[in-house]
Amino acid sequence: MTDLFKKHIEKFIVINEEEFSEVLSFFQVEQVQKKQNLMMEGQVCKYHYFVLRGCLRKFFVNEKGIEQTTEFAIENWWLTDNKAFEQRLPTEFFIQAVEPSEVLRIDNLSQEQLLQAFPKMERYFRFIYQRAFAASQMRIKYLYGLSKEAFYHHLNEQHPEFVQRMPQYLIASYLGFTPEYLSEIRKKFSS
Amino acid sequence: MTDLFKKHIEKFIVINEEEFSEVLSFFQVEQVQKKQNLMMEGQVCKYHYFVLRGCLRKFFVNEKGIEQTTEFAIENWWLTDNKAFEQRLPTEFFIQAVEPSEVLRIDNLSQEQLLQAFPKMERYFRFIYQRAFAASQMRIKYLYGLSKEAFYHHLNEQHPEFVQRMPQYLIASYLGFTPEYLSEIRKKFSS
Repeated sequence: MTDLFKKHIEKFIVINEEEFSEVLSFFQVEQVQKKQNLMMEGQVCKYHYFVLRGCLRKFFVNEKGIEQTTEFAIENWWLTDNKAFEQRLPTEFFIQAVEPSEVLRIDNLSQEQLLQAFPKMERYFRFIYQRAFAASQMRIKYLYGLSKEAFYHHLNEQHPEFVQRMPQYLIASYLGFTPEYLSEIRKKFSS
Repeated sequence: MTDLFKKHIEKFIVINEEEFSEVLSFFQVEQVQKKQNLMMEGQVCKYHYFVLRGCLRKFFVNEKGIEQTTEFAIENWWLTDNKAFEQRLPTEFFIQAVEPSEVLRIDNLSQEQLLQAFPKMERYFRFIYQRAFAASQMRIKYLYGLSKEAFYHHLNEQHPEFVQRMPQYLIASYLGFTPEYLSEIRKKFSS
């Protein structure tokens, strides 16, 4: 299963079996049950997660007590609260498994030691953060510029398999509206 | 003025005078007038900008024809449309100088050549993107979780000098409301 991680690294840098096996030694593999919390609000954010199988989501609980999903991570995606992870601070988010999942996790100190030991992994992580930031910049544009309905259609066009795979109440939570409203939009869309 | 860039690099990596001078040779210095556009919607996004002096903003024009500001960059900040920059695509954004500014610019090919020539700059850019992404993740949380009024107070508390420095209509444009509404909130806040 860790082969997926090797393939992902190889998209950006050249790495041989021996190096990969050493890189991997900085990580732990963790099996996660559906709905299990990997991180909870108020805890120090210890880990950066790479999804080998399954799906995680990140959310916070808003003032009305509603879970607001801000990110998903499926296979080949990284997930954490980056600010809290880098500064070893308590997080304002939860990370929870949407499906039974298998993840690699690395703590902040180990990630720094990994980068010291394998400077070429700087290039790998530079690409990871660069693309995550680029996607986030577009996301902010959509949050400002699109109506909720247009945001849903955009998501459906860009990531149809993802929308099919996720429970609908979580898609609603990600888009910032109620499951009932999503259901209405979908009826309108399919008719 | 380029000394500011050297100091910024030195926050993350060790670099000597000779190396810095070579690094700098991948960039051009550009003087920008107030309100001058460095990038316009529909153009291929050519440059990544580092602000030496002054202030840039990034915005898009929404369906109603209103300029929606999504980012600012003052001294020591990088700015571009990262998705369009990496993929050399037409951008959906404008980048415009808010104040008379001096910037360093680098094109995509030169940035890649710089990273090939100075692999230690991977670490510098890794930190730049990592922190930009972390800030962006928190920004998305505020966009979902805070009322417009709370968002303004948050900005005022976190970056009071920035709010003082910027024209108020641009702060309004960044927060996604009208200058009139911002003026109301400020009156309520100061009374």
